Amino acid sequence: MSLSQRMQTLTGGGSDGWDVFIKARKMIAAGTAVTELTIGEHDIRTAAPILQDMHRSAMGGHTGYAMVPGTDALRDMVAARTTERTGVPTTRDNVLITPGGQAALFAAHAAACDPGDTALYLDPYYATYPGTIRGVSAVPQAIATRAEDAFQPRAADIAAHAEGARSLLINSPNNPTGTVYSRATLEGIAQVCVDHDLWLISDEVYDTQVWEGAHLSPRALPGMAERTLVIGSMSKSHAMTGSRCGWIIGPEEVIAHLITFATHTTYGVPGFIQDASVFALGQGPAFEAEVAAPFLRRRAIAQRVLGAQNTIGLIPAQGAMYLMLDIRATGMSGDDFANALLDRHHIAVMPGESFGSAAAGHVRVAMTIDDAGFETALRTLAGFAEARARAA
Amino acid sequence: MSLSQRMQTLTGGGSDGWDVFIKARKMIAAGTAVTELTIGEHDIRTAAPILQDMHRSAMGGHTGYAMVPGTDALRDMVAARTTERTGVPTTRDNVLITPGGQAALFAAHAAACDPGDTALYLDPYYATYPGTIRGVSAVPQAIATRAEDAFQPRAADIAAHAEGARSLLINSPNNPTGTVYSRATLEGIAQVCVDHDLWLISDEVYDTQVWEGAHLSPRALPGMAERTLVIGSMSKSHAMTGSRCGWIIGPEEVIAHLITFATHTTYGVPGFIQDASVFALGQGPAFEAEVAAPFLRRRAIAQRVLGAQNTIGLIPAQGAMYLMLDIRATGMSGDDFANALLDRHHIAVMPGESFGSAAAGHVRVAMTIDDAGFETALRTLAGFAEARARAA
Repeated sequence: MSLSQRMQTLTGGGSDGWDVFIKARKMIAAGTAVTELTIGEHDIRTAAPILQDMHRSAMGGHTGYAMVPGTDALRDMVAARTTERTGVPTTRDNVLITPGGQAALFAAHAAACDPGDTALYLDPYYATYPGTIRGVSAVPQAIATRAEDAFQPRAADIAAHAEGARSLLINSPNNPTGTVYSRATLEGIAQVCVDHDLWLISDEVYDTQVWEGAHLSPRALPGMAERTLVIGSMSKSHAMTGSRCGWIIGPEEVIAHLITFATHTTYGVPGFIQDASVFALGQGPAFEAEVAAPFLRRRAIAQRVLGAQNTIGLIPAQGAMYLMLDIRATGMSGDDFANALLDRHHIAVMPGESFGSAAAGHVRVAMTIDDAGFETALRTLAGFAEARARAA
Repeated sequence: MSLSQRMQTLTGGGSDGWDVFIKARKMIAAGTAVTELTIGEHDIRTAAPILQDMHRSAMGGHTGYAMVPGTDALRDMVAARTTERTGVPTTRDNVLITPGGQAALFAAHAAACDPGDTALYLDPYYATYPGTIRGVSAVPQAIATRAEDAFQPRAADIAAHAEGARSLLINSPNNPTGTVYSRATLEGIAQVCVDHDLWLISDEVYDTQVWEGAHLSPRALPGMAERTLVIGSMSKSHAMTGSRCGWIIGPEEVIAHLITFATHTTYGVPGFIQDASVFALGQGPAFEAEVAAPFLRRRAIAQRVLGAQNTIGLIPAQGAMYLMLDIRATGMSGDDFANALLDRHHIAVMPGESFGSAAAGHVRVAMTIDDAGFETALRTLAGFAEARARAA
């Protein structure tokens, strides 16, 4: 029995870049203590009051099918928060609740692209992006950003690939680079989208984790609300990764179609999780800042530790929960560096090559362990890089 | 901005058959008391011990990303239960946990069909089937079953459409007809699948609701385990519709690919919901019988009420939570009958035409209200049919 081509080619062949991660997991399973700085998971759990609210909702009887578009309460809350944060008038009819941000990314591409259509995305990228595009039988086209630009995309590079494409996927604050796109960057991107009639799919799941400047949603730029689909989620902002609750914000007509798509792909999100999400969003910006605070602290630690050496370059960590380190002075690839660091010091980081080709010679460090452990690991990593650079 | 063709044509155009349902909802919103016998939602909520277990899991810290394939505990439990119920050796590697049965239906078709491929399904059908197929850009092809066969499919009818098709979707116990496919029916279907190299997608979400005979999973027939993808769910068997927890069972190699697909479409199911599902499955067959019992009681009520008249024909209600009533003696279409019943007696049932063309002249009655109310509604419905038949 042969599977669909879609299924057989989803990962595009070759390594998926998770070798170091898997090796680390195997070492841990075999009893080795490994410092894991790989994935984007908070070192805190979902706050107890949120879970207690979820329990109240479930025991109160919200256990049957929830409405497929999402509960009115959550759609209204997400809409009001979006209006407040971006200035773009947004109502419940602009919002579809999805079982997590990944489901939202998939649905957005299903809305934008038919089989064979070209969908653009920027390199380096979050691991699922090209496979998400292939999942709707579209053709992923990576556009490299540049380390010398701190991975701010250049509009001209995007324009060079835009002819005939249907969509462009961006992510700011960015995973894996920690870059926050500037107004100039986003205005350039918007112009390309208008000029080439592209849908802009804007993954903004890190929008509460901005350490320099301010988050700008491209949906707020002139003429962009009609062609922008914003991806949001409770995962990163409220430490609710396991609750799988996200959303798409877009034009009413698109959301109406996406509701029909949701009816045929997921059939809604648990009502008690949506109620808990309303409760969590109701805690307001102070709570969101509290969830984000550890990453801001650890970023300061990293700036202090790395400020005292000259081997590793730190891509300006403007947002999100990651650091992107330029380790090219060691003469090693990101892959080799990450493997050697894991073998020698039992510290696991992600090779830049895991995220495409544009971040070769870099490694990504997730700031997801306690401050003291994080500082120790970073000092060890820096010392290791320095020794390798001297030997190079 | 134009949407993908996939999105624009998902419902295939025309009425989606939910007009009566929507009209009933509007009457209720306007303050009219309507007896709703439309959708497949239990009149009980999820049992408190299951929700308490979910809360224990969440408060215990199972709030981060769960493994995408599902937790080992739930995959093992579903596998063991499948082995026990079907005799087919099944391990965790044959199981992918999905956010509900609808997500499993979608993923199964994504695995079987590429864009443009033909996917077969049987009429009458559950409302989402053709749109699920269009959602993967495949082409749905309905095959009519016949009221005179009590909607048992004929293998020859399927074979007549099988040339060049990639998959066949079946559902036993069946929604909307209440038919449970016989061994002879399933053996005939299996032979067509083998002869034409079709994937068989077997939606078995009502497998704990069998009132006559026994449920037979076609995966247990000779040569079928390698080409069958079974869809299961906690929704109907454990009154957990709102928890959105389902699964696909299939060959290891297919499940491995489906895990990759899940990584790119949903990224797993909440760990606390999976833990609650393990707890619920651990209650065993006695609990499942308890959840199913109201439908068995109401079926007996229906047999008694309808046994005393000759206008309405009751399709043998062998399983699931629905009755399919033949109202052709009234001279009315199912649509007209359902609309007139709603207008005159404020009782909402689904026209057979909502489920395709094969059940025209029928209405589907969900057995989802309390016994006394159900009996009263059914007596009113029967009296209404009789009056209409006399007037015809």
